[in-house]
Amino acid sequence: MSSPYSRPLRGNVLLPACILLLFRLDQFRAEDGMEELATEKEAEESHRQDSVNLLTFILLLTLTILTIWLFKHRRVRFLHETGLAMIYGLLVGVILRYGIPSTSYHNKTPPSCSLKERPVPTLLLNVGNKFFEYTLKGEINSREIHNVEQNDMLRKVTFDPEVFFNILLPPIIFHAGYSLKKRHFFRNLGSILAYAFFGTAVSCFVIGNLMYGVVKLMQVAGQLMDKFYYTDCLFFGAIISATDPVTVLAIFNELHADVDLYALLFGESVLNDAVAIVLSSSIVAYQPTGENSHSFDAAAFFKSVGVFLGIFSGSFAMGAVTGVVTALVTKFTKLHCFPLLETALFFLMSWSTFLLAEACGFTGVVAVLFCGITQAHYTYNNLSSESTNRTKQLFEVLHFLAENFIFSYMGLALFTFQNHIFSPIFIVGAFLAIFIGRACNIYPLSFLLNLGRRHKIGWNFQHMMMFAGLRGAMAFALAIRDTATYARQMMFTTTLLIVFFTVWVFGGGTTPMLSWLHIRVGDHTLSREEEASRQWQYLRVGVDPDLDPQPTSDSFQVLQGDGLQSNGGSKTKQESAWLFRLWYSFDHNYLKPILTHSGPPLTSTLPGCCGPLARCLTSPQAYENQEQLRDADSDLILNDSDLTLTYGDTAITANGACGRRKKSNSEEALERELEAVDHEVISRGTRLVFPIEDHA
Amino acid sequence: MSSPYSRPLRGNVLLPACILLLFRLDQFRAEDGMEELATEKEAEESHRQDSVNLLTFILLLTLTILTIWLFKHRRVRFLHETGLAMIYGLLVGVILRYGIPSTSYHNKTPPSCSLKERPVPTLLLNVGNKFFEYTLKGEINSREIHNVEQNDMLRKVTFDPEVFFNILLPPIIFHAGYSLKKRHFFRNLGSILAYAFFGTAVSCFVIGNLMYGVVKLMQVAGQLMDKFYYTDCLFFGAIISATDPVTVLAIFNELHADVDLYALLFGESVLNDAVAIVLSSSIVAYQPTGENSHSFDAAAFFKSVGVFLGIFSGSFAMGAVTGVVTALVTKFTKLHCFPLLETALFFLMSWSTFLLAEACGFTGVVAVLFCGITQAHYTYNNLSSESTNRTKQLFEVLHFLAENFIFSYMGLALFTFQNHIFSPIFIVGAFLAIFIGRACNIYPLSFLLNLGRRHKIGWNFQHMMMFAGLRGAMAFALAIRDTATYARQMMFTTTLLIVFFTVWVFGGGTTPMLSWLHIRVGDHTLSREEEASRQWQYLRVGVDPDLDPQPTSDSFQVLQGDGLQSNGGSKTKQESAWLFRLWYSFDHNYLKPILTHSGPPLTSTLPGCCGPLARCLTSPQAYENQEQLRDADSDLILNDSDLTLTYGDTAITANGACGRRKKSNSEEALERELEAVDHEVISRGTRLVFPIEDHA
Repeated sequence: MSSPYSRPLRGNVLLPACILLLFRLDQFRAEDGMEELATEKEAEESHRQDSVNLLTFILLLTLTILTIWLFKHRRVRFLHETGLAMIYGLLVGVILRYGIPSTSYHNKTPPSCSLKERPVPTLLLNVGNKFFEYTLKGEINSREIHNVEQNDMLRKVTFDPEVFFNILLPPIIFHAGYSLKKRHFFRNLGSILAYAFFGTAVSCFVIGNLMYGVVKLMQVAGQLMDKFYYTDCLFFGAIISATDPVTVLAIFNELHADVDLYALLFGESVLNDAVAIVLSSSIVAYQPTGENSHSFDAAAFFKSVGVFLGIFSGSFAMGAVTGVVTALVTKFTKLHCFPLLETALFFLMSWSTFLLAEACGFTGVVAVLFCGITQAHYTYNNLSSESTNRTKQLFEVLHFLAENFIFSYMGLALFTFQNHIFSPIFIVGAFLAIFIGRACNIYPLSFLLNLGRRHKIGWNFQHMMMFAGLRGAMAFALAIRDTATYARQMMFTTTLLIVFFTVWVFGGGTTPMLSWLHIRVGDHTLSREEEASRQWQYLRVGVDPDLDPQPTSDSFQVLQGDGLQSNGGSKTKQESAWLFRLWYSFDHNYLKPILTHSGPPLTSTLPGCCGPLARCLTSPQAYENQEQLRDADSDLILNDSDLTLTYGDTAITANGACGRRKKSNSEEALERELEAVDHEVISRGTRLVFPIEDHA
Repeated sequence: MSSPYSRPLRGNVLLPACILLLFRLDQFRAEDGMEELATEKEAEESHRQDSVNLLTFILLLTLTILTIWLFKHRRVRFLHETGLAMIYGLLVGVILRYGIPSTSYHNKTPPSCSLKERPVPTLLLNVGNKFFEYTLKGEINSREIHNVEQNDMLRKVTFDPEVFFNILLPPIIFHAGYSLKKRHFFRNLGSILAYAFFGTAVSCFVIGNLMYGVVKLMQVAGQLMDKFYYTDCLFFGAIISATDPVTVLAIFNELHADVDLYALLFGESVLNDAVAIVLSSSIVAYQPTGENSHSFDAAAFFKSVGVFLGIFSGSFAMGAVTGVVTALVTKFTKLHCFPLLETALFFLMSWSTFLLAEACGFTGVVAVLFCGITQAHYTYNNLSSESTNRTKQLFEVLHFLAENFIFSYMGLALFTFQNHIFSPIFIVGAFLAIFIGRACNIYPLSFLLNLGRRHKIGWNFQHMMMFAGLRGAMAFALAIRDTATYARQMMFTTTLLIVFFTVWVFGGGTTPMLSWLHIRVGDHTLSREEEASRQWQYLRVGVDPDLDPQPTSDSFQVLQGDGLQSNGGSKTKQESAWLFRLWYSFDHNYLKPILTHSGPPLTSTLPGCCGPLARCLTSPQAYENQEQLRDADSDLILNDSDLTLTYGDTAITANGACGRRKKSNSEEALERELEAVDHEVISRGTRLVFPIEDHA
């Protein structure tokens, strides 16, 4: 059915748009005839068209930005920028589709030639003893042969789907990983992993099976025109299981909604993207052998599971390793004296993760996600204050542009994509299936998790999570990646409609839903002073308020926190599994000291026999931290606003220092540290970990 | 000779490298035979190869960054990062060329088919009733047919030359324009324009004619294998006239060398890039009609001049217009409350200049340059302090990466480019010609300029400018753009060697040359306190120290400057032409108030009849500035470090306010303003223009 080159034919706009003509003029030589002049003009025309197309998108984004400013200015919350981008995309799509007279389409079949061999990547064309090189673009259906050149303009605005996967998604996903360094993320890590892994798998299989029923129904009703296998249904389940509640999270941010709920939703949506990608590729890898090619085959099933585990762990390892390497490089060089070099290195290393994973046959996007998390957890602490800002801002801008581009493209695609298959039964079935799938993910899992959790996930939280099952960029990118077969085209159309509906309706309904479910609004863990000082920050778009509170409020909180330290100690014990606590103690005692300037000196955590190695790996700052804290905690902390000229980021762990002061590396101290992670605050040159009263 | 598709054949790595395979697995369907599996594997292999190639470049850049850190750390100045990037590129090139066993090259001729018609952009291939689409890549020489697939790997690491022009150059050029907002740039604008326009034209024609002599000599000596026209020589003159003294400027920055000399060199190098591009395309446009196709033809000559003026003014207009539109948008919306939106808008608008210019048939790179200058002059003042930082840092990183990428690619290209033509006579001739050309640019022009200048350009400055005639990224990008003919290939090889030589030898010799020429080192206009506070900033790479001095030192300088105000008044009168002063008064009285929040309110500069319009266009801040200054200049200035929460950037022109205080808009006041531009300092939310003693 599908062959290696069965991708839909699309004009690849991005690069050709860049490959524009300046020196075309030199090609009007006297010895060349009129025909080349014509080809020349055609080529020039096509390049101009590319520029115009990209310009269209840029103007769309500009319009979106200006409108969203107006909305934010007037505090309109029912429509998020992504929803707006889709609307503008739709409008432009309608104009392109219906507003341009049909005379501009030239309907002709390009010349063809025959070859006995298999298709080759490079073909030579001999025209009057001049040779021209042609490269393979893809296979096309025989029904499309006659309109390859038809609707040229519509095809032009249609991007190569790989652009989404390889240019637009990586910055989005990296940014998500890089901003995962949240106080509440690690607290809820167990639940987040459960939702992301088991939940997504459950959702995928529920949706897949329901859709198989729908497909059978369509077959009975005579609505199915072509093959639609069970694996296709599962594939649809996988791509549509990637949630993207960007709209909901933006409103949470703005209204300072409950931080635990925020962490659960954000963490789940970030990780389930990775799960959905790997899941869909392992479903595709499920290929029973022999004639009976679409029935169950245990060998193929286990192969699929193996592919899932292989790709996932491989990509995870790639991401983690490059993150660790970057952390080591930034720790052991004094690169932080040159923030530009540091930022460039950071950017290059993060990009190399993607390429490395792809070169090794793993999934670049997933590797980039874990690289982002590692960078945030370790490297971030080694960067100079300028670089921390610069990297955050750089990726924030890239993320913002890429995300809005994808959403406005989605709007456009509804009208410009040539092979939509609108099947009412399939669409209605899919809408039902995703709600049932989401419900089967959230409610049973929450029940199970609540058995082990101290802070139960309440009914209102569960309903909100159910409600926040929006679909977005990842589902779209996965769906558009392969639209060669009938089944895939139907899936693509349905996915588009689901994204539109969920973003507009659920996104718009977030504020009423929050109040209807009595979910706390206004960040209750913040003091009033802090809230006032942070006010300006919440005005920013897409910035996680947890990430960098105002430096002015730190010292206040630290002092306060120091007094309340005894409160938070033992609460987490029941909550976190021993495995998790083991990881934390390992991370705090060994990884952080090795990879960053923070944590206790290795000389105090490693056994005596490793003395020389420990001294070699421990950064001077680690001793300093200890010394300084021992001497005068609060003085240092109060004066930390003058620390801008210190070397790099010094991380001072108030709690950890306590542990060391008592010379106990006991589990108890680590418990506190674990609890304290919630209240981690990063100030300009100093990282302060302080326990504040637990939000009960 | 050359046809529309006679570009050299190169693997376009950038996009394919991204177009990597994830869902390839789904294509191993049972019904497809072994042959597609083979094609499939080939494609996958090729994509992995692309990833590996890009990874190579990233590792190269990473290595460069680490080494350059070491150099900066140890204050090694004889080798700049660009020189280092070239060395690493050379090493990798050698390894790729000679280190990989020749068995990995598969030497086969791809299948070909014939067609009677002219070459078409899209070709269909019929293989057993399956249709495949092919796209035209370019014409290839008949001698190359048999090794299209040979040295596949070497061809792979060779980028599409348009990538340089359309992806890598724009951020470099935009950054140059955006950092042109220097105090000393405008003071020397006349001289800079003279060097950039007349100087480059002179250099181009001198080099072109000398090279024509060399070519004739080669013809006599029997060293010329193919045609080499006079226009080719002029073209070579144009591409090699673009100077790029990045190495020299970096050292100037580090040593705080004379600021006027810095401004002259930097300004010249930025603008002559634009001149060289447009000049080369107008030389290419010089096509005498009729049979006598390479002799002089007045009509064709004037057509060329027309093309030059047309492209230049068109690109200039495009750049200026988008800059102005951005300024207006940022002024009249309160977008500065949302720095992310603001930055995104700024980025999109700047990019749209490029596309707009290309879509209209002008030169995107030139448009981007003028857009950058306009953005720096107007929009920059309207941005929030966060956005000013963010935009600067964003473009700084892009510039850094793009520049080092180009230089390391240059090193690589010396060994991996397949069609080098090393002609000793041509190379020696070219080296002589560029020195003579540079001399004919600098010395006569300096003589003429000195007739009109108050601050003469001394002999040592002239020698230094002569010495700083390095060639870099622009010459390379112009040379690699078209390497289809024998002449162009020879030019490309020669350009590469000239870049290597000038960057290493002249770049490395800058420090000795400075002391040998007795050029002042250590910025003499800075107070000691300021210098100390700026110290950290000079450590940064590629950052213009003039651009943003430490806020702490502003208030000090302003107060000092206020006292010395009377000194600088009338000096500039003789120096600047009336046209220039007219522009300044126009800019200060009308453009700045309309486009930014700075300058005097329009109500005071426009005639009374325009009252309503003036009130509408003047931002509230303009009145405030006036009020505040009238009330208490120094108080406000001393407290300006607390102004971070004000709306946008308020620009306070100490001198301008003086003029208004006396209610005189006379030329005299503008003279002072003009003089004061030299001492413009931008602090966090406030722009202060103050006169300080003139550095004599």
